[in-house]
Amino acid sequence: MPSVLITTVPFGDKNRTPLDMLEQNNIEYLINPLNKKLTEDELTEMITDFDVVIAGTEPITKKVMDRSTNLKMISRVGIGLDSVDLLEAENQNIVVSYTPDAPAPAVAELTIGLMLNLLRSVQLSNMEMHRGKWHRFFGRRLSTVTIGIIGVGRIGSGVLQHLQGFGSPRILLNDTKPNPELEKRFNIEWVDKKTIYQQADIITIHTPLTVQTKNMIKKEQLLNMQEDAMIINTARGGIINEQDLYTVMQAGHLSGAAIDVFDFEPYTGKMREIERCILTAHMGSMSVDCRTRMEIEATEEAVRFLTNQTLEGVVPEEEYAVQREGL
Amino acid sequence: MPSVLITTVPFGDKNRTPLDMLEQNNIEYLINPLNKKLTEDELTEMITDFDVVIAGTEPITKKVMDRSTNLKMISRVGIGLDSVDLLEAENQNIVVSYTPDAPAPAVAELTIGLMLNLLRSVQLSNMEMHRGKWHRFFGRRLSTVTIGIIGVGRIGSGVLQHLQGFGSPRILLNDTKPNPELEKRFNIEWVDKKTIYQQADIITIHTPLTVQTKNMIKKEQLLNMQEDAMIINTARGGIINEQDLYTVMQAGHLSGAAIDVFDFEPYTGKMREIERCILTAHMGSMSVDCRTRMEIEATEEAVRFLTNQTLEGVVPEEEYAVQREGL
Repeated sequence: MPSVLITTVPFGDKNRTPLDMLEQNNIEYLINPLNKKLTEDELTEMITDFDVVIAGTEPITKKVMDRSTNLKMISRVGIGLDSVDLLEAENQNIVVSYTPDAPAPAVAELTIGLMLNLLRSVQLSNMEMHRGKWHRFFGRRLSTVTIGIIGVGRIGSGVLQHLQGFGSPRILLNDTKPNPELEKRFNIEWVDKKTIYQQADIITIHTPLTVQTKNMIKKEQLLNMQEDAMIINTARGGIINEQDLYTVMQAGHLSGAAIDVFDFEPYTGKMREIERCILTAHMGSMSVDCRTRMEIEATEEAVRFLTNQTLEGVVPEEEYAVQREGL
Repeated sequence: MPSVLITTVPFGDKNRTPLDMLEQNNIEYLINPLNKKLTEDELTEMITDFDVVIAGTEPITKKVMDRSTNLKMISRVGIGLDSVDLLEAENQNIVVSYTPDAPAPAVAELTIGLMLNLLRSVQLSNMEMHRGKWHRFFGRRLSTVTIGIIGVGRIGSGVLQHLQGFGSPRILLNDTKPNPELEKRFNIEWVDKKTIYQQADIITIHTPLTVQTKNMIKKEQLLNMQEDAMIINTARGGIINEQDLYTVMQAGHLSGAAIDVFDFEPYTGKMREIERCILTAHMGSMSVDCRTRMEIEATEEAVRFLTNQTLEGVVPEEEYAVQREGL
């Protein structure tokens, strides 16, 4: 009987469809019993002889693949591939699929929520009110600030789309491959990253984690930002250097930040000391509809693989090329 | 020398223009030295012989007007007139002006921020993360829920406008005077309030506080709402009965609420015990641009009055009619 290890949690929680699909196809499965993001060691221990992993963002490294005796396929629930050693998977003839479209709408919408929350100090007022302190914070409206978006793929363009309902903020975009279509539809400027750091009141990051973007925003870039600027990371931990962000904010720089993704998850680090930093638990894709779609798509792909049907979500060559360049 | 009492605080804080305008016109002024919303007694004590009040939402009652020996004009910084006894002002020949357009964009934008915050449990995750607890909350996207807007004037239509950037949520509207123009521009349904209570996943209120809307949403209406529905009040305290909201939420009903306005402000009541209720300090209009515009408009009107120019923001007869009906 073919068997699937489901590492990402929660899974099948709000909608049982993916579990039903596995059962109907007589596929055995185990859902990660540790109920948290696995470390490399934990996954190495757990993976044993499963045929397929339906995977979250835990590290699927050479060590993991060497230990797995039967692994033939990795089906990622989501888009980022920084956690999967694609070149080693290729070496070992392990197929990798993913669900790149499914999470985007939920991440883009959460990002707008975090922007408005930061701009109006909602979380600060909420904390103070619950403690019995009344202070009317001043805020800013989207249409009066300059917004910088770094990375304008599926998620970044979703953010751009949502911003259209809020008047005409000045929007600065940066991407390695600027999409000329966007200029026709939206009032935007393509600029280099340095211009975004210097001019944006609020910066949001929507790049993948690669060699190029790891530590893209360190102390130098943070200090280039205006003193009362704000930054949002709903992309991947490590793109903003966590230690540097902590250090500059602790010293009073930046008026706010919202961080949903971390170097190590579950996060328990020092940013917890900083109240003007909103912290959320990697919830970008966690709308019921998007999460369900991600789980169903990743499970469908696993079932296709195990029943010898044509795959629909195979990771394209360009993702391998990114890793060949060095991650 | 003519004199103005400025009761609303903060005032001239982010932008000194209104204070400069008073000084250039040789108008004396006092900014509320208690630096909080005044009670009727405090205002009665403070008002003495000022010619004009540039007013917040503190109660300007018969008692206050009887005590004021020189008061000839009330210039409200904002839109709501529930705090001003218009009929008594008319009796005593006190002119009342207001700035009905200025606050709307800031209130509408904060409302969207609160919606997204509630739908994705941002404030709950933020609180837990700061305490060191990691839990990935499920949420919902705007386009997958039914949104109910009660009161579709300047602010309610702003909310409607912002929602256009988020796909096609089902939107239910209720207003005493439904505006047929909105049906041409947006995909909406005009329904009665009961339908909104029963069907909406998230309800937001944008009515004035009047005899009709005071306690509009009590225990009965709250219990009519779905168990996991959410409610937002950025309009006026008292429209939702605070005690009833506390009681039903304490018992587990409703999955969230966001309350920006209270019966008595500064608020120190029992809703503070309920973490899934976002509390903010009457910050709807507190974007720098809208607040500045409100303060400038209200001050310009006071200057016009004191320099015998034509007024531009006089409260229209229909607002007096509302109070004649009973507030």
